[in-house]
Amino acid sequence: MSIEKIEVMTDLTEANDRLAEMNRNRLSKAGVFCLNIMGSPGSGKTSLLEVTLDEIKERYAVGVIEGDLATSLDAERLKKRGAEVLQINTGGMCHLDANLINKALDHFDLSKLDVLFVENIGNLVCPAFFDVGAHKNAVIVSLPEGDDKPIKYPVMFARTDVFVINKTDLAPYLEVNIGKMKSDARTINPKLEIMELSCKDRKGTDKWLEWIEKQIDSMPSH
Amino acid sequence: MSIEKIEVMTDLTEANDRLAEMNRNRLSKAGVFCLNIMGSPGSGKTSLLEVTLDEIKERYAVGVIEGDLATSLDAERLKKRGAEVLQINTGGMCHLDANLINKALDHFDLSKLDVLFVENIGNLVCPAFFDVGAHKNAVIVSLPEGDDKPIKYPVMFARTDVFVINKTDLAPYLEVNIGKMKSDARTINPKLEIMELSCKDRKGTDKWLEWIEKQIDSMPSH
Repeated sequence: MSIEKIEVMTDLTEANDRLAEMNRNRLSKAGVFCLNIMGSPGSGKTSLLEVTLDEIKERYAVGVIEGDLATSLDAERLKKRGAEVLQINTGGMCHLDANLINKALDHFDLSKLDVLFVENIGNLVCPAFFDVGAHKNAVIVSLPEGDDKPIKYPVMFARTDVFVINKTDLAPYLEVNIGKMKSDARTINPKLEIMELSCKDRKGTDKWLEWIEKQIDSMPSH
Repeated sequence: MSIEKIEVMTDLTEANDRLAEMNRNRLSKAGVFCLNIMGSPGSGKTSLLEVTLDEIKERYAVGVIEGDLATSLDAERLKKRGAEVLQINTGGMCHLDANLINKALDHFDLSKLDVLFVENIGNLVCPAFFDVGAHKNAVIVSLPEGDDKPIKYPVMFARTDVFVINKTDLAPYLEVNIGKMKSDARTINPKLEIMELSCKDRKGTDKWLEWIEKQIDSMPSH
């Protein structure tokens, strides 16, 4: 007689994945490109969205789902820049999931949006395990975090499409090997798009903006 | 008729807390001071331990439990500096817990140690919820992460004893308000000890080392 087993983690992520697929279909049908942005606390997720809003808000209607443990500080920053923002406070939970995004989508008129950004909880570990239903996933790492991040947090790099290296303005004051960081990331995920930029002085942000616009424009209804 | 309820999170952390208390008693009886160090990826947890080992290893026998998702890179760095190191690879799990530390303690001859450091998984969220059984808990934040970290990750600051602000050497190149960071942290936790230092140029590390030595020397068998 075999022993019955309940594998909780598998069941949980299976249910999450099904719901994520529903979110993705709903967004696709509405012609809204959705990008899930992940990264450590302070890596620059909100700053990257500020730069992005400044450059694209004249041409596109932008929504943001802002994940935070407790505050609305980032949501306020992005509202000021012209995005329609919905705040999710997780009360301590360490990642967003498809169920939260599913509920969040009800708060937007998707027919009026071109692009929806999800700013995930500041965490380089847990968010990687939970598909939220975005079309693409991005991870942002800032140079001061060190060049060993891809090799030490491989799941995140295996499951994202774009790797943004931020705070390149600080490179002269740090001992980091950007080449190693990039080659480690490509070993984990050969399809990864990698971009180096500085949100502070806006160097290198052109490539990022081009990529975003290409994604938005490639959605069916555009 | 009332509805039965299972509150999983409460049960899990209750069991964890009981086991953590056992770990703490075991360490106290052996006269080993234990410090749990938490912080984001790249905040400087391993660098702080390198500095600490260089300064105290002549006088104290030091053990380290090194938590990582997949690699042994940090464990190797600390072994080189003279610590007895045990690696825990969590395979993706985002925090260490009392059960893992309980197993890890079996790998040390506690009668020969003076101090045991636990380097937790790089994560400013989840580790705060899981008491590992250390005598004290520290959180390390590096300046480039920004001055909004205490207010955005309050649970971590509410549950730690020491707040180390690292990478102060980068202050001239950043727009961060250290005063705000400290006062926000003290609002959340008025008992918090706060130290500013740079592991790179070793400025401000004296206060940290004094604090560590005081903790070690105050253990019963010393």
